[in-house]
Amino acid sequence: MDQMFDKITLIGVGLIGSSVARVIRREGLTGHLTISTRTKETLDRARQLALGDDYVSDCAEAVRDADLVIVSVPVGASGMVAEQISTALKPGAIVTDAGSTKLSVVKQMQPHLPDNVHFIPGHPVAGTEQSGPDAGFAELFTNRWCILTPLPGTDEAALSRLKAFWERCGSTVETMDPEHHDMVLAIVSHLPHIIAYNIVGTADDLEMVTKSEVIKYSASGFRDFTRLAASDPTMWRDVCLHNRDAILEMLGRFAEDLSSLQRAIRWGDGEKLHDMFTRTRTIRRSIIEAGQETDAPDFGRQAVAQAEPEAEG
Amino acid sequence: MDQMFDKITLIGVGLIGSSVARVIRREGLTGHLTISTRTKETLDRARQLALGDDYVSDCAEAVRDADLVIVSVPVGASGMVAEQISTALKPGAIVTDAGSTKLSVVKQMQPHLPDNVHFIPGHPVAGTEQSGPDAGFAELFTNRWCILTPLPGTDEAALSRLKAFWERCGSTVETMDPEHHDMVLAIVSHLPHIIAYNIVGTADDLEMVTKSEVIKYSASGFRDFTRLAASDPTMWRDVCLHNRDAILEMLGRFAEDLSSLQRAIRWGDGEKLHDMFTRTRTIRRSIIEAGQETDAPDFGRQAVAQAEPEAEG
Repeated sequence: MDQMFDKITLIGVGLIGSSVARVIRREGLTGHLTISTRTKETLDRARQLALGDDYVSDCAEAVRDADLVIVSVPVGASGMVAEQISTALKPGAIVTDAGSTKLSVVKQMQPHLPDNVHFIPGHPVAGTEQSGPDAGFAELFTNRWCILTPLPGTDEAALSRLKAFWERCGSTVETMDPEHHDMVLAIVSHLPHIIAYNIVGTADDLEMVTKSEVIKYSASGFRDFTRLAASDPTMWRDVCLHNRDAILEMLGRFAEDLSSLQRAIRWGDGEKLHDMFTRTRTIRRSIIEAGQETDAPDFGRQAVAQAEPEAEG
Repeated sequence: MDQMFDKITLIGVGLIGSSVARVIRREGLTGHLTISTRTKETLDRARQLALGDDYVSDCAEAVRDADLVIVSVPVGASGMVAEQISTALKPGAIVTDAGSTKLSVVKQMQPHLPDNVHFIPGHPVAGTEQSGPDAGFAELFTNRWCILTPLPGTDEAALSRLKAFWERCGSTVETMDPEHHDMVLAIVSHLPHIIAYNIVGTADDLEMVTKSEVIKYSASGFRDFTRLAASDPTMWRDVCLHNRDAILEMLGRFAEDLSSLQRAIRWGDGEKLHDMFTRTRTIRRSIIEAGQETDAPDFGRQAVAQAEPEAEG
């Protein structure tokens, strides 16, 4: 229970912010935890959940005397937050974020932040499809990766402290430059979400198959996509707007590959289809071996359904 | 433990066949269960697992005296099986299958089957990404749908017996015509699998993001697709070849919608993106309410990981 910072301020208390709050408490990482969020209802809810030590709607007031400030808001709002807190930050404070895109966050936040604070952009690569302060849990970051994208000239001691913080949260920290982060996340996270949103939309529009049929028979594959497509729309709108170039690059490649697969189906090229469907198995095996996935069949839905009978209707 | 059939023969003993074997035993649905499969290794494995009462490689010999024959093979092999068993079938026997496409199965099997048996095509809409006799489990069909696509003139008594069989396996039975089945499954199952195979292939081909990065950061969305993309390649090659028209129709719609979404991203149309990302949430809620999905966040991977610590590396 070593305290790492005298005071930590969290701006934004959704899935990520509220999970950070919970793990900070569990690990005893600070003497004082301030929670700040714009919406009164969310702030009240955070208070009811006892996520912090005090609750402040004005983010400038919230960051005063904080040694670590973590901004977890939709990426489109990060510039505004940086502008508002800029003059209230304590010299020497570490300012970081949890946004899913990094180049855009750097462009939005850096111009506002004073030279005497340590701005180190970050991204804990973890999440569920749920959102809001009730959705968070302290174990969200356990065995997950946290990517930091320090800018040239970043203070090594500050970087080490932030790394140590995420490690105490259960994560393994990796550093890379913001451009590369955005490219990696475009393929592992942004494209999958966009594809999932898209296929669920396509199914919703069909006139020859009813919505009730899609729902009834969803266990044959479709439902796996609905988890991602249930994610927070504001967050994902902002991701699309703020990582546009990398996403368009990945979408282009995906569409090209899909056309090739479509052609193999049209022309009955069974050998090509079999080859394409074979090589993808090894990737899943590697993900399971890397501890990033459960190897329970069907995501272990059975075990979950047995543990929580209310999940089955 | 009411026996429903004196003798049941299962042809094919992969995920579906071996699950049917297990539920037949659990429910005591037959006096004698014969297992038949072409590959010696698989047949030996079925014997080791004690899935039936006897094990016969020749499927014609296996179906002799059977009152119910269930063919669970890749759909491309169903015509060959029908041809081989045709002269050995007992008059009055019910012959059904478990294939994921129905028009093609009807076209392949019907010409070979004698008039004095009841051929009722079927499709238990259930599965996991795993395959082979070890992957099956008796609960696979619990709370799932089984679709039967009876042909014109089907004997009502035989249809009722087959319905009752699947109900004893835990499923709810629905009937529809084969054309409609193939359209419904194209959107709820075939398209999702094809998309999943495709995105995993796209990620595998990237030169600017390493395979190790895709694996490390897969928890942010990508891994959800890898489950479907780990499914049996032979089964899915056959599905693509045998439900071509419906799949091409759904692929066309999906690609059209994706182009529209891509355009919204390129031109920064935040309102359109937000709208598209909002409406998809309600479908997931409906699927959970229909008992076809767990509402545990992240598919309940956490609960599974806690129950089976070896799943986390």
